Amino acid sequence: MNRRKILQLLGKSVAAGAFFKLSTGLAQGKIPQGATEPMKTLGIPLREYGERSEFEQKVIRYISPNLRSRHTGASFTPLDQLEGVITPSSLHFERHHSGVPNVNPAEYRLVVHGLVSRPLIFTLQDLKRFPSITRTYFIECAGNGQNGYRNPPDMTLTATRSRGLVSTSSWTGVPLSILLKEAGIKEGARWLIPESQDAAAYIRSLPLEKALEDVLVAYAQNGEAIRPEQGYPVRLVVPGWEGSIQVKWLRRIELTDTPVMSKDETSEYTDVMADGKIWAFTWLMEPQSIITYPSGLQQIERGFHEIRGLAWSGFGRVRRVEVSLDGGRNWKRAALEPAPDPLSAVRFKVNWAWDGRETVIMSRATDEKGNTQPTQEEFFTRWARNNRYHYNAIQAWRIGADGRVVNGDRTLAGAPAQLGAAGRGGCGGES
Amino acid sequence: MNRRKILQLLGKSVAAGAFFKLSTGLAQGKIPQGATEPMKTLGIPLREYGERSEFEQKVIRYISPNLRSRHTGASFTPLDQLEGVITPSSLHFERHHSGVPNVNPAEYRLVVHGLVSRPLIFTLQDLKRFPSITRTYFIECAGNGQNGYRNPPDMTLTATRSRGLVSTSSWTGVPLSILLKEAGIKEGARWLIPESQDAAAYIRSLPLEKALEDVLVAYAQNGEAIRPEQGYPVRLVVPGWEGSIQVKWLRRIELTDTPVMSKDETSEYTDVMADGKIWAFTWLMEPQSIITYPSGLQQIERGFHEIRGLAWSGFGRVRRVEVSLDGGRNWKRAALEPAPDPLSAVRFKVNWAWDGRETVIMSRATDEKGNTQPTQEEFFTRWARNNRYHYNAIQAWRIGADGRVVNGDRTLAGAPAQLGAAGRGGCGGES
Repeated sequence: MNRRKILQLLGKSVAAGAFFKLSTGLAQGKIPQGATEPMKTLGIPLREYGERSEFEQKVIRYISPNLRSRHTGASFTPLDQLEGVITPSSLHFERHHSGVPNVNPAEYRLVVHGLVSRPLIFTLQDLKRFPSITRTYFIECAGNGQNGYRNPPDMTLTATRSRGLVSTSSWTGVPLSILLKEAGIKEGARWLIPESQDAAAYIRSLPLEKALEDVLVAYAQNGEAIRPEQGYPVRLVVPGWEGSIQVKWLRRIELTDTPVMSKDETSEYTDVMADGKIWAFTWLMEPQSIITYPSGLQQIERGFHEIRGLAWSGFGRVRRVEVSLDGGRNWKRAALEPAPDPLSAVRFKVNWAWDGRETVIMSRATDEKGNTQPTQEEFFTRWARNNRYHYNAIQAWRIGADGRVVNGDRTLAGAPAQLGAAGRGGCGGES
Repeated sequence: MNRRKILQLLGKSVAAGAFFKLSTGLAQGKIPQGATEPMKTLGIPLREYGERSEFEQKVIRYISPNLRSRHTGASFTPLDQLEGVITPSSLHFERHHSGVPNVNPAEYRLVVHGLVSRPLIFTLQDLKRFPSITRTYFIECAGNGQNGYRNPPDMTLTATRSRGLVSTSSWTGVPLSILLKEAGIKEGARWLIPESQDAAAYIRSLPLEKALEDVLVAYAQNGEAIRPEQGYPVRLVVPGWEGSIQVKWLRRIELTDTPVMSKDETSEYTDVMADGKIWAFTWLMEPQSIITYPSGLQQIERGFHEIRGLAWSGFGRVRRVEVSLDGGRNWKRAALEPAPDPLSAVRFKVNWAWDGRETVIMSRATDEKGNTQPTQEEFFTRWARNNRYHYNAIQAWRIGADGRVVNGDRTLAGAPAQLGAAGRGGCGGES
């Protein structure tokens, strides 16, 4: 390889510009003692099942200390400590209503009945024999964002607490449409009533049209069996729709002509709109984005930084993410990685040289249907002040002259102190 | 939604054909008792870090009972128990030479020196500040396949033992080219000497051209910090090349004009060719595929099955995978999922109705450069009979009339009893 080739390859590799010249804090000097100690010790032997480094044990899901019970509530994916798009299964957010059931897969049965020609019972092994599909989808709690909004802003907010009720996995399962064809859909069937085998007997209504479109009866997550918290051994994956309809620990699907109108689609998981009306069945998740670095309670130095974040939308692919480095006056388009897949999250990145002056950064996602994240003010023109769900307003982070990052949201005149301020509890809420 | 729309959606969803009519064993009848027990018990509360179900603890890496020490050797990914493409990090194959070092990230330093203008030391935090890339790549031990070949065939072979020294992860890191530009490559530099901080002081030679092309200095795997067994906190990812050059626990990179000719690129990890010559620096991994279901020691019933497997190649994208259901006489093209990415694994699938007669199934991958997996006979026309590495011959599985699946390879006249039969030990070998 000649010199020209080297320069050619180098040039290609740094097409983004000579940003590293802006770096500071890249240590230069002598090799510290201590770094070579592992070379003097015989290491850990082969193991049948691996674990994280002892130095990574602090990367955990966030559980609000204010919960009255850990048997109903949520834990948050630590978005501000992760890279890429796939969420490690051990850190996938949780949301359950009576704890995580411990299901024996040998006893597992899925019943499909109601308006079908042939009521069927499937064992886990039966389900695995059907043609399978593997797809990467985000799952987001309808209550995500609930902690991201406080008025005046919560100055202890982190990216994790703001938007950590979202995770992305590679899901494997059998298309529900195949099982329904096997059972034979009867005239008049319009709804499916999936039921969980948790102690809450959690139950919802799912339109037949969505069930036939892209819903999975999933048994694997990121290559292995679904984790207990995510519905072991079988759950519904309902791409792009709120997590609460993606029934976990699935035991029964009844086909009916009308929805079941369960507690969790009437008193819970319904939206209060600005005109005072209540909307039920608001399943689609609006576009979202969150800057995960630099984000709340982190500390940065002057010089080069790659601003990193996540974006997603229940309406399809993320079309673009814009980032503002000056409090919303100017916006620049972020790079997206990988090329956006439908109903999956995408990582966004912007190169930035911080000059040490106080500023506010924020991100805004737009999906392929043209939906864009609203400002906080805009959010409350569509949804009522006491709504609790589907909060997807732009999250801002303020970077102080000392490099400390805190919530950059502004205090809004006449706005509620928090979502759902009318008094109802919340799936993701800390209060 | 009217009847026509339902039928239209159903038709679309089962375009693969009415294969489910061929199914047997899909239980039909009454709901068994026992399946509803979890509904009577309050479940597991929210947890900061999740674990697998107690019923999945048997899914583990395979470690040969014949190893003299677990401090040097390999453990195999249980390919026959996983779905999709991403390998759960806890089940990523292992290969190390003096155990897994326990590195404190606060003390971690990477030194870049030798033929550079500015010798540099990077902390872990420094590396994370650089522009990052996340890509899905397979990593495969050069010795993968070593257990897949025995003459006469090993009738206890599983897909895991045949090809389980391969795993696929989403890797995040900084392109090595950026760090090299930061250091300034001096005239005459042609090689990089990456060194590990394990107790073996493992060291290799990497051509500068590859380093500039696509090598990552990686610090994250599947979203979180790299696992200890895969190089925590920092490793090289050298896409498509044998795992042994993707130096883990990376502490030092020296730029030189010549390779270092270390033990692991001279006495080990070199190939004996059919003409008796030894080839060093044979880094590229040949195309591979393995049917993971049905595979060795599994048991199947008559009726519909989705044959599933994995394919990959170090030369770029997998172009096609063909599957034979009749011992190699006829081949049909498998469906690939997802659309193949360069230097990543891909899942392949073929719908099959087994009529209960004994048969032999096998798969064959071809990559975008036109390389195809050889038969066992063809393999030994290129490589010598005592070669140990890069065995990528077609793996066959025999399905008996009783549904039991065993190794379907044939006994070869005049062929060696096993790879490396001349007596050298093996990275993946059980003997």
